[in-house]
Amino acid sequence: MFRRRRLLSLVLLAGLAATGIVACTTTATSRVDDASRLIDEGQLPPGYRDWKLISVAREENEIDDIRAVLGNDTALHAYRQEKRPFPEGTIISRIAWSYEASEENNKVFGRSRQSFVAGHPKNGVQFMVKDSAKYASTGGWGYFQFDDGKPTKDAKAMQNCFPCHAKFEAHDYIFTNYAR
Amino acid sequence: MFRRRRLLSLVLLAGLAATGIVACTTTATSRVDDASRLIDEGQLPPGYRDWKLISVAREENEIDDIRAVLGNDTALHAYRQEKRPFPEGTIISRIAWSYEASEENNKVFGRSRQSFVAGHPKNGVQFMVKDSAKYASTGGWGYFQFDDGKPTKDAKAMQNCFPCHAKFEAHDYIFTNYAR
Repeated sequence: MFRRRRLLSLVLLAGLAATGIVACTTTATSRVDDASRLIDEGQLPPGYRDWKLISVAREENEIDDIRAVLGNDTALHAYRQEKRPFPEGTIISRIAWSYEASEENNKVFGRSRQSFVAGHPKNGVQFMVKDSAKYASTGGWGYFQFDDGKPTKDAKAMQNCFPCHAKFEAHDYIFTNYAR
Repeated sequence: MFRRRRLLSLVLLAGLAATGIVACTTTATSRVDDASRLIDEGQLPPGYRDWKLISVAREENEIDDIRAVLGNDTALHAYRQEKRPFPEGTIISRIAWSYEASEENNKVFGRSRQSFVAGHPKNGVQFMVKDSAKYASTGGWGYFQFDDGKPTKDAKAMQNCFPCHAKFEAHDYIFTNYAR
């Protein structure tokens, strides 16, 4: 009887340990799903600013910003495996800032045109969300922009996303390469 | 006796659950410590490329790169809390790439000088590690650079780190601000 009880305890303990692991995994997965849903519902997904870095870029002319492209774990995994098309649930985010000459850095370097840094947030926060069924008419990707944390009111600008991205159909509509 | 056994099981279960949580926390903490140690021993800390983004920048002239500044969790927490000096264990990393006009992007935009992206890795991977006792002679920060994954052989260049960073003593020797 004692041994059976002890066995039962061990089974319970092992079960709980396994549950602990599953709890961790489930949390991570449901966060991914939550992010897609929240974006679609017009909310910035919490934590997107901490997503992993895919690459950086600078756009000149009217856009005039310096930017970072971040991705959720699904995006990063696909980039590293060079897996195309990107899997369902991939989310790629573009954050951008004004492109500013850093006077304090330049003073240290003793040059007037040396160091350019990220200034104030600019050109909104954009997301591409992969859901082949839901966004079938735009290559399987949904396009979203948030201005000051709210869905953009510039509906016309959003209609300009897909026509450009469509030219990158061979790369599953994505401009950005992973910066190794 | 039965109730005591059941109580014991519950205590054990609760203990294991707590251990599960502690195990997660310990793993995160020891990774931070590991990173400092590994850098000091001349090894790139696994996963540094996935650290959270602090900001992006562009350096012109001889440096001629586009860069991202990443930080471990201690760094990010301090940046967000605007906590200076940075706590012990803070690690800030600078990764950089060649600054390249993207021909394929520019073709889409119909302009020759529009989109600049990260090309090949350039100027090494740099780290600043906060350990006030160990690096007391350089403001409490250790300066490290890895070229092609190995500690740089350019000892002279490394001697140039602190004299410039020393000019930012008021910002705890750090050039980069957090890009909000």
